[in-house]
Amino acid sequence: MVDAMRVERLREGMKTAGLDALVCRLPENVVYITDYWPHHGFSVVVLPRDGKPRLFLPEIEEEYAKPDWADYSTFGWGLLKDGDLYENYRRLLTEARGQLGLQGAVIGIEQSFEVSGPTYRMAEPVVPAAPWSRLMEQVFAGQKLVDAAGVLQNTRAIKGQYELDKLRIANEIAEMGMNVFLAQLQPGMREVEVGALIEQTIRAKGPGYKGARLVRASAEVGAGPVGSTKGTLLVPSTTYTIREGDFVMVELATVVDGYWSDLTYVAVAGQPSARQCEVYNAVLKAQQAGAQQMKAGALFSDPDTAAREVLKEAGLGDYFVHITGHGVGWRYHEFIPFLMPGAEGTLETGMVSSVEPGVYIPDFGGIRIEDNVAVGADGPVFLSTPRQPWS
Amino acid sequence: MVDAMRVERLREGMKTAGLDALVCRLPENVVYITDYWPHHGFSVVVLPRDGKPRLFLPEIEEEYAKPDWADYSTFGWGLLKDGDLYENYRRLLTEARGQLGLQGAVIGIEQSFEVSGPTYRMAEPVVPAAPWSRLMEQVFAGQKLVDAAGVLQNTRAIKGQYELDKLRIANEIAEMGMNVFLAQLQPGMREVEVGALIEQTIRAKGPGYKGARLVRASAEVGAGPVGSTKGTLLVPSTTYTIREGDFVMVELATVVDGYWSDLTYVAVAGQPSARQCEVYNAVLKAQQAGAQQMKAGALFSDPDTAAREVLKEAGLGDYFVHITGHGVGWRYHEFIPFLMPGAEGTLETGMVSSVEPGVYIPDFGGIRIEDNVAVGADGPVFLSTPRQPWS
Repeated sequence: MVDAMRVERLREGMKTAGLDALVCRLPENVVYITDYWPHHGFSVVVLPRDGKPRLFLPEIEEEYAKPDWADYSTFGWGLLKDGDLYENYRRLLTEARGQLGLQGAVIGIEQSFEVSGPTYRMAEPVVPAAPWSRLMEQVFAGQKLVDAAGVLQNTRAIKGQYELDKLRIANEIAEMGMNVFLAQLQPGMREVEVGALIEQTIRAKGPGYKGARLVRASAEVGAGPVGSTKGTLLVPSTTYTIREGDFVMVELATVVDGYWSDLTYVAVAGQPSARQCEVYNAVLKAQQAGAQQMKAGALFSDPDTAAREVLKEAGLGDYFVHITGHGVGWRYHEFIPFLMPGAEGTLETGMVSSVEPGVYIPDFGGIRIEDNVAVGADGPVFLSTPRQPWS
Repeated sequence: MVDAMRVERLREGMKTAGLDALVCRLPENVVYITDYWPHHGFSVVVLPRDGKPRLFLPEIEEEYAKPDWADYSTFGWGLLKDGDLYENYRRLLTEARGQLGLQGAVIGIEQSFEVSGPTYRMAEPVVPAAPWSRLMEQVFAGQKLVDAAGVLQNTRAIKGQYELDKLRIANEIAEMGMNVFLAQLQPGMREVEVGALIEQTIRAKGPGYKGARLVRASAEVGAGPVGSTKGTLLVPSTTYTIREGDFVMVELATVVDGYWSDLTYVAVAGQPSARQCEVYNAVLKAQQAGAQQMKAGALFSDPDTAAREVLKEAGLGDYFVHITGHGVGWRYHEFIPFLMPGAEGTLETGMVSSVEPGVYIPDFGGIRIEDNVAVGADGPVFLSTPRQPWS
């Protein structure tokens, strides 16, 4: 099923920016244009203003290419027979330049990134750097090369139904891990064990679920009065042994075929106290208030204001030290929208954001509740399962 | 315990290349210079020709800094209070430029990378790109900025005792996972389940082992006559259900505090046949022959020649379609040494390589045996546990 919509939207952005074609290598942009998530990071896509995208990918990844999305051809990579990678790039791109009539064209390339989405093989990121820049300057000698990072980021911010369905699947797979966490958490487990169990569940059970193929997860766990309050940001799991009554916070990144979920769950090992329930429920109320503002026409700052107001009323405002949410989709963290105080920009139908207020109270613990919420035609649409109050 | 040796070696390389200082942001180089593995990828190290390295890192990562390795200072990142990241960089680097007397200095920066080592937070690589280049040109306006990628790569190729000990720990932790694989493999398991079990073991049991803190693993599993022969390269695990008599190949990347292990194991689900034993043992003999050539003064091509010769004699030469090994240490794959036919270059004491001959036989299966081997003063030193023949 081809989502031609998103490529058409990208072409409108190219037109406005005066770009005749895009040449992309960042995995997140290859996914966006071709719906194929590069395994190694050596794939390249050329998107002309008309016609199908042209994808080049390593032979070994051919089975992942989607011919209805892109015309593709393969090149050898990684074996003795395959020769130099950059010479292969040069040959393929020079051919494409001729075949697509890109002599004289203005070419959009990826320059102003730094935070990026990984390939499936996360252990070894591959990104375009100086060797790629030199190659672009040689293949398109004398032509105008323009930074297309902004066009790509803006276009990617709006998700259509195809992407929303994919993001929902990523969240459902993430929740397989979270549900095992909720069912099996008990005092005596170590943070690292809890995280490993969640990741194992997702890695073992995700592939095959509703067509999912390439699935990865990263769960970081912070427990107890100290560990959970560190969770203001992503803090690595430690060997701390969880005690009865500890808050246990799980920050979970899950990716399914290039589509991301970003969730945070908190549970108590054993029975939560009345005060723990009270604070948890206040954060949940703030999260729900924030999510209610995920509607077309609201400002990026509106969900933040709504969530912050609830926590202030509960006397917890000073403990909410971070933003309320960020875009999610082709990366774990995207920058549109960015739900924070004073953020300019207006929410549009199809934007997807985490909604994740949190409080971090010294000597007590940290509670953050994070779901992924889309701006629907008729208001907010949860892509993950809304949480229930504690009692 | 500071390994001043490696920084001194780097300074010799800087001197030869005419560099007065290095400014590094790639996680692998930050680990090399400071022994601290960046969690998020926003850390920066400045290495002057004299004195301690100067490290800037996010407040949240302060506990990972090693003050005996580097003078460090923190900056806020990720919270509402923290302001713009690049403004923080500008301030800190401008201060360092003044304090270290780098006005007029030739500055080495990272340009010619593309394959890179990730931060601990592998779900979101952060690399220096155009925004960083612009900042460097502003902070060091009018000064010479030189690509230091070659100097860094060459220096990192030689490991001292401190690094060898760390790489051995990474291999020991990796083998925790491989031992669970060997003990629990049975027909009926799916490839993805096997991989998830190995990763879980390493993620849960690695932290705390011999001082290890930040541990990640990625296991890809290929089984059966088709799946195992795809393992010529890194191929994602699938939902294939393993059958009695299948070869099962595991390609495992493990990282411990920024030090890498790269292992491949093969086992048979159930009892191996006589032919399976015969082919496995031929590959093992080739691997041992290759490893024996990991000695100072040998050519990069010598281990490859030795391994290839054994497989030719066994009538398996045509199935060995890739190189014999590559450097390993601050990345999953480093480029020095590169053990392949015709490779120029001479092995030196302290170099570390994978040694991984493999054969991929249609309708039969794939067998690769990969260990990590150092060039020791008196010959090869296995950093992982040598394998035994099958019977």
